[in-house]
Amino acid sequence: MTRDLTVTEVRLTPILVADPPLLNTQGVHQPYTPRLIVEVVTADGVTGLGETYGDTKYLELARPLADRLTGRQITDVNALFGLDIAVNASRVDGAVDVGGLRGVQTADKLRLSVLSAFEVACLDALGRALGLPVHALLGGKVRDSVEYSAYLFHKWAAHPEGVPGEKDDWGAALDPAGVVEQARRFKERHGFTSFKLKGGVFPPEQEIAAVRALAEAFPGHPLRLDPNGAWSVETSLRVARELGDLLEYLEDPALGTPAMAEVAARTDVPLATNMCVTTFAEIAEAFTKGAVQVVLCDHHYWGGLRNTRQLAAICSAFGVGVSMHSNTHLGVSLAAMTQVAATVPDLHHACDSHYPWQSEDVLTERLAFDGGRIAVSDAPGLGVELDRDELARLNRRWTEDDGALRDRDDAAAMRVAEPDWVTPTMPRW
Amino acid sequence: MTRDLTVTEVRLTPILVADPPLLNTQGVHQPYTPRLIVEVVTADGVTGLGETYGDTKYLELARPLADRLTGRQITDVNALFGLDIAVNASRVDGAVDVGGLRGVQTADKLRLSVLSAFEVACLDALGRALGLPVHALLGGKVRDSVEYSAYLFHKWAAHPEGVPGEKDDWGAALDPAGVVEQARRFKERHGFTSFKLKGGVFPPEQEIAAVRALAEAFPGHPLRLDPNGAWSVETSLRVARELGDLLEYLEDPALGTPAMAEVAARTDVPLATNMCVTTFAEIAEAFTKGAVQVVLCDHHYWGGLRNTRQLAAICSAFGVGVSMHSNTHLGVSLAAMTQVAATVPDLHHACDSHYPWQSEDVLTERLAFDGGRIAVSDAPGLGVELDRDELARLNRRWTEDDGALRDRDDAAAMRVAEPDWVTPTMPRW
Repeated sequence: MTRDLTVTEVRLTPILVADPPLLNTQGVHQPYTPRLIVEVVTADGVTGLGETYGDTKYLELARPLADRLTGRQITDVNALFGLDIAVNASRVDGAVDVGGLRGVQTADKLRLSVLSAFEVACLDALGRALGLPVHALLGGKVRDSVEYSAYLFHKWAAHPEGVPGEKDDWGAALDPAGVVEQARRFKERHGFTSFKLKGGVFPPEQEIAAVRALAEAFPGHPLRLDPNGAWSVETSLRVARELGDLLEYLEDPALGTPAMAEVAARTDVPLATNMCVTTFAEIAEAFTKGAVQVVLCDHHYWGGLRNTRQLAAICSAFGVGVSMHSNTHLGVSLAAMTQVAATVPDLHHACDSHYPWQSEDVLTERLAFDGGRIAVSDAPGLGVELDRDELARLNRRWTEDDGALRDRDDAAAMRVAEPDWVTPTMPRW
Repeated sequence: MTRDLTVTEVRLTPILVADPPLLNTQGVHQPYTPRLIVEVVTADGVTGLGETYGDTKYLELARPLADRLTGRQITDVNALFGLDIAVNASRVDGAVDVGGLRGVQTADKLRLSVLSAFEVACLDALGRALGLPVHALLGGKVRDSVEYSAYLFHKWAAHPEGVPGEKDDWGAALDPAGVVEQARRFKERHGFTSFKLKGGVFPPEQEIAAVRALAEAFPGHPLRLDPNGAWSVETSLRVARELGDLLEYLEDPALGTPAMAEVAARTDVPLATNMCVTTFAEIAEAFTKGAVQVVLCDHHYWGGLRNTRQLAAICSAFGVGVSMHSNTHLGVSLAAMTQVAATVPDLHHACDSHYPWQSEDVLTERLAFDGGRIAVSDAPGLGVELDRDELARLNRRWTEDDGALRDRDDAAAMRVAEPDWVTPTMPRW
């Protein structure tokens, strides 16, 4: 073997990607959202791709961590997780990310969120170097395709007038009929057979009505509702009672493990989370209290694909379901999610994916959903190719930004349309 | 890449290996013990090695599982764990293995115990094919050597007269002075700096005296005592009180999670186990009850090296320590243990290893302890080579055996010396 797997370069490219005006309990998505594209280059000239959050605090950490990766073997990733790279305390102490939508903030989680992109890039590079798909490096796939659910949002037809941004053809969805229409287009375009509705935007009655309308329009299709912790325990229980058997699960109805545990103790509707369990340190309390029945893993938070498999094993041992969380991400991360999801035996819920909302990507060829599923690539690495022109274009957008969009802030975006908007105090209802 | 990683042959070689007359609460080790050596051969002619238990019920399962591995890629192992290969119910329903020394028996655990050898052999073959050490296939080592503890046994000087068996030069150890002398030789020969004493053989007072004698002879050396569940809760607590701070941990003082939980609730001495938590299904109850503070992983039971990493992650998330269990095994398994242990971040206790008691091995070169540590090999695969002549010799011993030794039975061995010996009812004390 004359192969040289030493990392000789780590390229970090921050970009801004178009995002439609999707509503959540914190506000609305800005017209562009920051992502970081990572390229790990080996001495042999093999390049592996990774992707993660691109807000300033992630970028600040990415450079020092990239320096520590350089000179290592791409197979020598575990030791990176033990590095105590300093994190600017003001970035995490008491900080919240996108109004808390990304769960607890800790220095360790911030490091993991950056390292995840390096781990994925190293696995991609290793797979390419060896001619093996990433799933084979994780012990092999146990399924040939991974099911995703349609990710429905209440949304405006367009970003506020005067705000630069891309147009989309999805139209508005501001009532139950609009949600059903959106679901219908998701099903037509991508074949999804399960639906998640982002809630916490309108009073619970309206969102209950939306779920009922979905259930009527798509009988037998699993449905989920996710208000991002916007409800009190009592409201959560009321929604659970009213929607009952219509729901596959309720996602983060209330904020924090104690509130989730209280809800879980008083309803049979399973509770899912990507807010109260987003780090290994939060698992023991939540599982011991029976606060959650499904953990939605975001492989960025959790530190990559091997850690995702470990989280899945923990869930399995405790009889807790596992699936995958997603927010604005591109095809690199979707490919990574698909590769690892293919290896997890106890994956019994369709994964979330925000990908259909992204009109832009850095791949030469977009990943395609067929029947709501992504085929598991058996090509080397992640099985995707970087479109350098598009990467450069999206990076120019980031470079030319005046800083307004470099840190995702859904409340700020909302204030453009509603100047009096303040970040809601939870629970809103 | 023209490499062909297809499994074209799985060679299964049962062997009998010499074992000294080591005493435990069930009886005494037989002069020879069964192991199974697995060779996985790829289309390219690369051979990977694995090793597991060799009793009849493991062998019975090994052939059908080997047939399912043949034709797969060596990178395609995860899916094997989902195969529902029939297990002869009489082998597991209510059965105990070596008087219960291997913990609960289930069909799934029996499958995992066989598959572990296949998984290790596939990783070894993959590493050899790619020129990478096994640890690199698991994300890379986080340490350059793995610490092991000396595994002290009460023992006879020799197997009973008239019983065929190999001689050993360790002499007898039937009282505290004998145990200290044995420890001294372990330290001289291999440099071990922590000691585990297999207990449950003599009344607790004598074993307490042995631990005190060790503490006096080797101040500052971590000490463990393991009676294999031979004590009542009250006896366990009495030993814990008497030995208190002298112990790094008490291993399986009482039998089963409820009894362990009761002991744990009433002592500050940490409890370790390789008996009440030997499967993923047993974790939730034990961890929720705080029954154990350290899980000793036997990678054979748990299904191999990736599963060992998953167990370690579960332990870490719950603040439970992890280390490694060992009983009679050869260098293939010691190499596998060392490779995976090298990748586990939270490994804070020296691993057990029975290896110094094995005078025979199937390797061309024995693994050597230096300062009680095994250096983590960076050679391709496990970094060990098979001695085919020795494998053939030990297999002939198995073939020529009349069946008496094909299933380990420590009570039967004891009856040779003490015809009235019956398997003790637990708790003995």
